[in-house]
Amino acid sequence: MFSFKPLLTALALMLSLTSTSLLAQETYTIRLAETWGPNSPILGETPRNMAAMAEKMSGGRLQFRIDSSNKHKAPFGIFDMVKAGQYDMGHTASYYYKGSIPNAMYFTTVPFGMIAPEQYAWFYHGGGMELMQKVYQPHGLLSFPGGNTGNQMGGWFREEIETVEDLQGLKMRTPGFAGEVMSEVGVAVTNIPPGELYSALERGTIDALEWVGPALDFQMGFHQIAKYYYSGWQEPGAEVQFLINEKTWNKLPPELQEILRVSMRTAAYDMYIQSTHESGIAWDRMKEDYPDVTHKTFPPEVIEALREATDKLLAEAAQKDELAKEIITSQHDYLQQVRQWTNISDKAYLNSVSSE
Amino acid sequence: MFSFKPLLTALALMLSLTSTSLLAQETYTIRLAETWGPNSPILGETPRNMAAMAEKMSGGRLQFRIDSSNKHKAPFGIFDMVKAGQYDMGHTASYYYKGSIPNAMYFTTVPFGMIAPEQYAWFYHGGGMELMQKVYQPHGLLSFPGGNTGNQMGGWFREEIETVEDLQGLKMRTPGFAGEVMSEVGVAVTNIPPGELYSALERGTIDALEWVGPALDFQMGFHQIAKYYYSGWQEPGAEVQFLINEKTWNKLPPELQEILRVSMRTAAYDMYIQSTHESGIAWDRMKEDYPDVTHKTFPPEVIEALREATDKLLAEAAQKDELAKEIITSQHDYLQQVRQWTNISDKAYLNSVSSE
Repeated sequence: MFSFKPLLTALALMLSLTSTSLLAQETYTIRLAETWGPNSPILGETPRNMAAMAEKMSGGRLQFRIDSSNKHKAPFGIFDMVKAGQYDMGHTASYYYKGSIPNAMYFTTVPFGMIAPEQYAWFYHGGGMELMQKVYQPHGLLSFPGGNTGNQMGGWFREEIETVEDLQGLKMRTPGFAGEVMSEVGVAVTNIPPGELYSALERGTIDALEWVGPALDFQMGFHQIAKYYYSGWQEPGAEVQFLINEKTWNKLPPELQEILRVSMRTAAYDMYIQSTHESGIAWDRMKEDYPDVTHKTFPPEVIEALREATDKLLAEAAQKDELAKEIITSQHDYLQQVRQWTNISDKAYLNSVSSE
Repeated sequence: MFSFKPLLTALALMLSLTSTSLLAQETYTIRLAETWGPNSPILGETPRNMAAMAEKMSGGRLQFRIDSSNKHKAPFGIFDMVKAGQYDMGHTASYYYKGSIPNAMYFTTVPFGMIAPEQYAWFYHGGGMELMQKVYQPHGLLSFPGGNTGNQMGGWFREEIETVEDLQGLKMRTPGFAGEVMSEVGVAVTNIPPGELYSALERGTIDALEWVGPALDFQMGFHQIAKYYYSGWQEPGAEVQFLINEKTWNKLPPELQEILRVSMRTAAYDMYIQSTHESGIAWDRMKEDYPDVTHKTFPPEVIEALREATDKLLAEAAQKDELAKEIITSQHDYLQQVRQWTNISDKAYLNSVSSE
């Protein structure tokens, strides 16, 4: 019997280590659906950046299968597909789901709202994450910031906008909440599929349109037709989102949950920085290749009219829904506080070093 | 024999799994020295945020022991201690080591340089990381961005600064490169230990001082003595750093290297966002509690003089050293490009929504 004891002990040890190891080595394949088409610059690079970090950090225990819109055919159905468990995760933008989940809208961006660093501060320190979870939790979903486009441009206009009158009857493609605000001030808002925008602008079906910013506008060619490029007011820091079905989330062991959480968080920040970089390159090139392109800011009276219309629509939304009111109030109060800091830091600095 | 085969196979399988498991379960304790004292807000929270993410993501395989300056007694000796292998990692700021490694300075911030998102874009997409590695590699070190303070304030002044003449002989505490620039324009630059700053300002030993920004200035109480709070020009986006001894780095398996890399990257971004948040709170409170505090921007003639002095010193540095020239040129060219975008996006937006 003497010689058996160590063997038995060793066997027991091995068995216990083996079971730990088998548990620890379990792999998970996460199916992710993105709103974007295949090879979509910046937006499409973000879930892939997230997946690459998560796969590498987990030593391959987290694997991802990412489907673009050409595969799942439902670019604006990500919310429903992840809710139904058809996909584990989504990469999309919450304001696309205004119809089915109206309060989601505020977590992308709001006209006259926060710029990217202010909005991240609201999400992570000002109660934003908790409010977002309050909106998504009843749907069995978790939502996380998924990348910021930076400040979006106000759009391409064939004619200069000098007064509010110039907006009356102007035919413009501008979707979402910004479109509603534009309607309020007299713009004839139309929606046109992305693939037809260039010819619609060229043929005069529309007089103006809003897309994103230099990095994504450049390849659309709008600058060849409409030379006035206006700074924005409508999407000061559009944050896209990661959605996760909470059943998938709950299945993961704590270390893989943390790997997923941190990968999403970094990929979101990374997209903001990549957008900054590529916008700089594209705007530089546009100005060089097309010296006719003229940067403009809307005159104060136009900004004032747009802001009043925004405030009116937000007040109406707050009156109709208790949770909407809570979110709008939280964002408003946070902006009041953080913007004072932005004004004496980056804004004062940028103004003091250049009058451009 | 028949009955032994499965047992032997099972044993072999267990042995192979066990060895994988033993290998995979190896833990590493990383000793990290920080410049900051114990419980240092924001700055000291950053390496702890990094460590918490890395420990959790690695399932405990990465462990950290963080020593504050009261323990290692060498707040400005982090570079040397990590180089010597006395610590595996450091959390510090590269411009503290101007003496031993002059080209490190440019990776923290440069007067009239980039703001935080511009600088992250330079690091990650504009060649900044590669240049930083060129500086640290001969010392057997890896360096990563370690958190941004945001735009630092120009400082607290007892009297208003209206002309360049007002700077002549002004006694001011302002360290580093900014101090050299201030000297160039006639300021009597002095260095005073942090603990004595308040009484030096109160007794008139100094007329002005520069610290960080509202979040860290508030607790120092300067606003109770000097009421003019100037916006900055000298540190538009000060990035602290993580340093790692490359022997430690090379010992880690690929998945733990990636966990460390991503934890540092996220913690750095997180610090920028936390700084934004806490600066907003502190500035709001300061204005409320001390209505005498007056925000100022330096007049254009003062900014012009400071900028000329900065350009002169940078040109001298570039002439003396080939690598300095490469870094200064890279930052200059990148800023030219990205700032045009910042100007038509955030700057134009911030100006159009408020004239403050």
